[in-house]
Amino acid sequence: MAATTTMDKPAPKDLSYHYSRVTKNRVPSKMKSFYQYFFIPGIGNLAGGLPNPSYFPYDTLEAATATPDRFKPTPNDPVDPPTERLAKATLSDGVKASRVLVPHDSAESNILRKIDLTTALQYGTAQGYPPLYTFIRSFAQTNLHPNTPYEGGPEVILTCGSTDAFAKTLECFTNIWDEERDWIREREGLLCEEFAYMNAIQAARPRGLNVVPVAIDDEGMLAFGKGGLYEVLENWDKNKGKRPHIMYTVTMGQNPTSGLLSVKRRKEIYSVCQKYDIIIAEDDPYWYLQYPSANDLSIKARGKPVSENFPSVSTHNYNTASGGISSGFDFLDSLVPSYLSIDVDGRVVRMDTFSKTVAPGCRLGWITAQPAVCAKIQQITETSTQQPSGFVQSLIVELLAGPSSKADSGKGGSKDGSGWKVDGWVRWLEGLRGNYERRMQLMSSILEDGKFLIQDGRRRSTVSEDEDDYQMLHKTQLYDFAYPMAGMFLWMRAHYETHPLYRKVDHQRLARALWTFMTTDDYLVLLSPGSIFCPTQQIMEEKGWQYFRLCFAAVDDDVLEKHSKAVVSAFTDFWAIEDVKTIDKLLEDEEAAQARFDKIAAQNQGLYAVNPIIC
Amino acid sequence: MAATTTMDKPAPKDLSYHYSRVTKNRVPSKMKSFYQYFFIPGIGNLAGGLPNPSYFPYDTLEAATATPDRFKPTPNDPVDPPTERLAKATLSDGVKASRVLVPHDSAESNILRKIDLTTALQYGTAQGYPPLYTFIRSFAQTNLHPNTPYEGGPEVILTCGSTDAFAKTLECFTNIWDEERDWIREREGLLCEEFAYMNAIQAARPRGLNVVPVAIDDEGMLAFGKGGLYEVLENWDKNKGKRPHIMYTVTMGQNPTSGLLSVKRRKEIYSVCQKYDIIIAEDDPYWYLQYPSANDLSIKARGKPVSENFPSVSTHNYNTASGGISSGFDFLDSLVPSYLSIDVDGRVVRMDTFSKTVAPGCRLGWITAQPAVCAKIQQITETSTQQPSGFVQSLIVELLAGPSSKADSGKGGSKDGSGWKVDGWVRWLEGLRGNYERRMQLMSSILEDGKFLIQDGRRRSTVSEDEDDYQMLHKTQLYDFAYPMAGMFLWMRAHYETHPLYRKVDHQRLARALWTFMTTDDYLVLLSPGSIFCPTQQIMEEKGWQYFRLCFAAVDDDVLEKHSKAVVSAFTDFWAIEDVKTIDKLLEDEEAAQARFDKIAAQNQGLYAVNPIIC
Repeated sequence: MAATTTMDKPAPKDLSYHYSRVTKNRVPSKMKSFYQYFFIPGIGNLAGGLPNPSYFPYDTLEAATATPDRFKPTPNDPVDPPTERLAKATLSDGVKASRVLVPHDSAESNILRKIDLTTALQYGTAQGYPPLYTFIRSFAQTNLHPNTPYEGGPEVILTCGSTDAFAKTLECFTNIWDEERDWIREREGLLCEEFAYMNAIQAARPRGLNVVPVAIDDEGMLAFGKGGLYEVLENWDKNKGKRPHIMYTVTMGQNPTSGLLSVKRRKEIYSVCQKYDIIIAEDDPYWYLQYPSANDLSIKARGKPVSENFPSVSTHNYNTASGGISSGFDFLDSLVPSYLSIDVDGRVVRMDTFSKTVAPGCRLGWITAQPAVCAKIQQITETSTQQPSGFVQSLIVELLAGPSSKADSGKGGSKDGSGWKVDGWVRWLEGLRGNYERRMQLMSSILEDGKFLIQDGRRRSTVSEDEDDYQMLHKTQLYDFAYPMAGMFLWMRAHYETHPLYRKVDHQRLARALWTFMTTDDYLVLLSPGSIFCPTQQIMEEKGWQYFRLCFAAVDDDVLEKHSKAVVSAFTDFWAIEDVKTIDKLLEDEEAAQARFDKIAAQNQGLYAVNPIIC
Repeated sequence: MAATTTMDKPAPKDLSYHYSRVTKNRVPSKMKSFYQYFFIPGIGNLAGGLPNPSYFPYDTLEAATATPDRFKPTPNDPVDPPTERLAKATLSDGVKASRVLVPHDSAESNILRKIDLTTALQYGTAQGYPPLYTFIRSFAQTNLHPNTPYEGGPEVILTCGSTDAFAKTLECFTNIWDEERDWIREREGLLCEEFAYMNAIQAARPRGLNVVPVAIDDEGMLAFGKGGLYEVLENWDKNKGKRPHIMYTVTMGQNPTSGLLSVKRRKEIYSVCQKYDIIIAEDDPYWYLQYPSANDLSIKARGKPVSENFPSVSTHNYNTASGGISSGFDFLDSLVPSYLSIDVDGRVVRMDTFSKTVAPGCRLGWITAQPAVCAKIQQITETSTQQPSGFVQSLIVELLAGPSSKADSGKGGSKDGSGWKVDGWVRWLEGLRGNYERRMQLMSSILEDGKFLIQDGRRRSTVSEDEDDYQMLHKTQLYDFAYPMAGMFLWMRAHYETHPLYRKVDHQRLARALWTFMTTDDYLVLLSPGSIFCPTQQIMEEKGWQYFRLCFAAVDDDVLEKHSKAVVSAFTDFWAIEDVKTIDKLLEDEEAAQARFDKIAAQNQGLYAVNPIIC
């Protein structure tokens, strides 16, 4: 089947009736009628309120950087430089390294290619620094989403990271509601996964939005069936407010469950969103961290894949298989595509970030959506963040795109001083994927081995094969998990119902005690309790307390191995506790520690609060 | 009079009833109860969703930078390196230059002092990167506002620049109002100067806020008299909505009028704000650009100062003269202090920015306000921008504070690798002040010389002294202005009433024609028309059209001289136009040019829009 040409495609729908009242009030800047005068050759500009660039105290910005092949993209046989050497990487020690330099002035006249401090550190455009905007726009349109179904394809606008992007999306599409002031029938709602990234939910709650969870399985949101999207919307009770018109969803390595939504499921969800006219805010920081090996591992260990909805070969090309054109890269073609790939209406607002591909401290990302929506986000940007910092924008684009020509005194992030270019960028992402995938496998295999307790206290791995029948009768399951198909997390359900004290101790207290037990001297390991990912009180009480989220991404392999084994040991030992007093003691100690900490934190102006779990 | 001690001071007032409904709904993050566990020695962290810092592609961040003494702080006899050399500044060419280096890992254990990429590029605290937050907090409390009247003094929180700061302040204190939905009695208002920085007004308008201008003189807002703050509030007409409870004000080098509000006027305005319970949002990007010489120049040229409310000696110490303690620096002591210096109630929310002291592209600044307000701004930050980019935060704090010790591999922005420290920072600001002050003087003197047209066509400067009587009878005033007491702008009123066509052409058309006339080949100079600084249609029609804003900051001295003279020539020649058709032709040409430009801009995705006037 031939690729659809632009001419065949319908225009995106006008969804402006979804805008909030504030967004509808926004009018394009009148300033634009003056812009032409700034381009009169030789014009003397006494109009702008710009500081003089020769008074910036920075003459260059520079960096020692990685080359794109620092990490070898070999998920099946992973090799990479030892971590301890990365920290001291220099050009000479064998680690793949380079240097980046942003000059004070570039001779390039095309502002779409010019990279220098005179432009990057000056006031700029709300869409983003022109050369970086150009790079990202091309990457989004050509490589990341080569097959968007509406005419002209999506536009992009840079953001200060995806939390900023979602705040602006909420501002764009939702009205504030107040219980004491407004009718319940006016209350708008936000759909989300039943376990969700809570920072997004916390952005919505103060606006009075009704947070409406949708049931999930190991893939992600359910379209149909009990608690699925269709059921929630079709049976909407108007006494709870308006039927929601916007959804927040993480579809690739969902946080906290690591779910990866298949194309089949995407189509089902999208069709329900069409029927009920839902805007889809797709937040996918982990899109490039997809692990085909998770299904293989699941089959090997348990005889069945995580989900039947995925192709059995890891070389599957999603773009050409659906009749579209290739991204130009095998790696990108092998990844489940965004909702944008089936977004005929233009109802998808996709959020991307450099937080996980470069570093969270960038505070840099972009929104991809139909042009009219990007134009509204741009207006919001003009009176809030204005643009991401020119420090990060110039250092990132010099790394990726490099200077416009060799004559330019800038230096990009490759040995010859040109930039990484798109192929270097894709290679970097594949290299990261390989490393994180290896850690996913490491943690999963340790937890797989430890999930049963043999009644006589012996662990499964120490029992010989011929004892299998004995085990089937006497083994106790401590926890369960799905092999992570994507992302940075393993989502584990503890089987408290097999614990000796299950009927004697309140379940949530038992869960809290286990969590605390793991932090004690013998185990020294900290997990995220499931309760902090529950969008409603009901979910927290019904099942949130049963879960833990384990991040396999942050620590080195040897440390990951140690801590994963500590988790198994803690479970094993916790299941040996038969005295209620031991549980009481754990919780008392926890309270005392909390009080001590609160006192110290108050003395330190709260600066200990390095938001360690927000991501 | 002895300095007031902390013990004598009253606590700031609880102003939480001023918060918006959304702000009242914000609750502190529950995450904080988990933070203690991150500080258990040796704890294995599988809880956080942090990427691994060894996978950041940046191994260092570096910069070639200025030393604090690059610019000589000699306002009376200014000397500085020629601008053309600054652009190519290196360590060797005699320009005062240094290097900054942010290492990947610092050995420092105190997070309030540690500067490295492992922390700066990781998820961080919403208050700001701890070492930068610490530097700024100390600078604000000790040096910039050493004499705040309430107990404990103000707190700070970092922002992504002052546009972001004001958006968050509006979010914190104002409710959205919609004409079609809400009662007029619920409409909240925003007080501002009658000529105002429009980007701030544009942030308020879509929220439905009633923008309420207050009359000004050359200093700034009037407390009393016609159109002054007291009159506006005392005679408030409830049919226009609620009496405003928040004010947006620029008090030092006001944009566009360059007004500098004296201490006397500040006290008057503050007392009115107390009476009517107004929150003061003070946006002062130009605070360090105060020019005592403006009054001297005005006296010399016109026989009277810009304002009588300022001390006659430029060495006046504002801090000790008011019975307070010194900032520790003569330069800071010589500057009119912020509203914070008289803020007994804690009703001032002060916004600072690095945009004019370092570079606009930083997108970095801070809010100074009573701690409870900063805590609310922090909650808003956690679900929007999270923090300013770690790229800019680390490069700025390494420049200013420098590495925690010589053993650290970081380098700060001074010859010996330590940071600028506070004294270097203050010196840098004084150096900038000297340079901008020289330009203010240059532009002012050229415009002073050109403001009269002698009836026989001779300019004043070409007429000998003994012809003074002749001139008094026959000279025509083209425009007038106050010598800028602060900031980057000169605010000029054109005396159209003396133009030959004043009674034959609509006044606003005449003004538009002059503005266009200046952009033609003989003059090639672009000014900001007064109309773009009018917060209401009424002000635009009544008087906005009479004004121009001229920025003396952006261009070099020689260019400034040329363009200032071009402005004078354009006025002179424009006043020689006696044929209405010439005016018509100018306006027709303008419309055609606009149409051409709009077409080109559309083809270039609007990226020509380098927001040249927004600042």
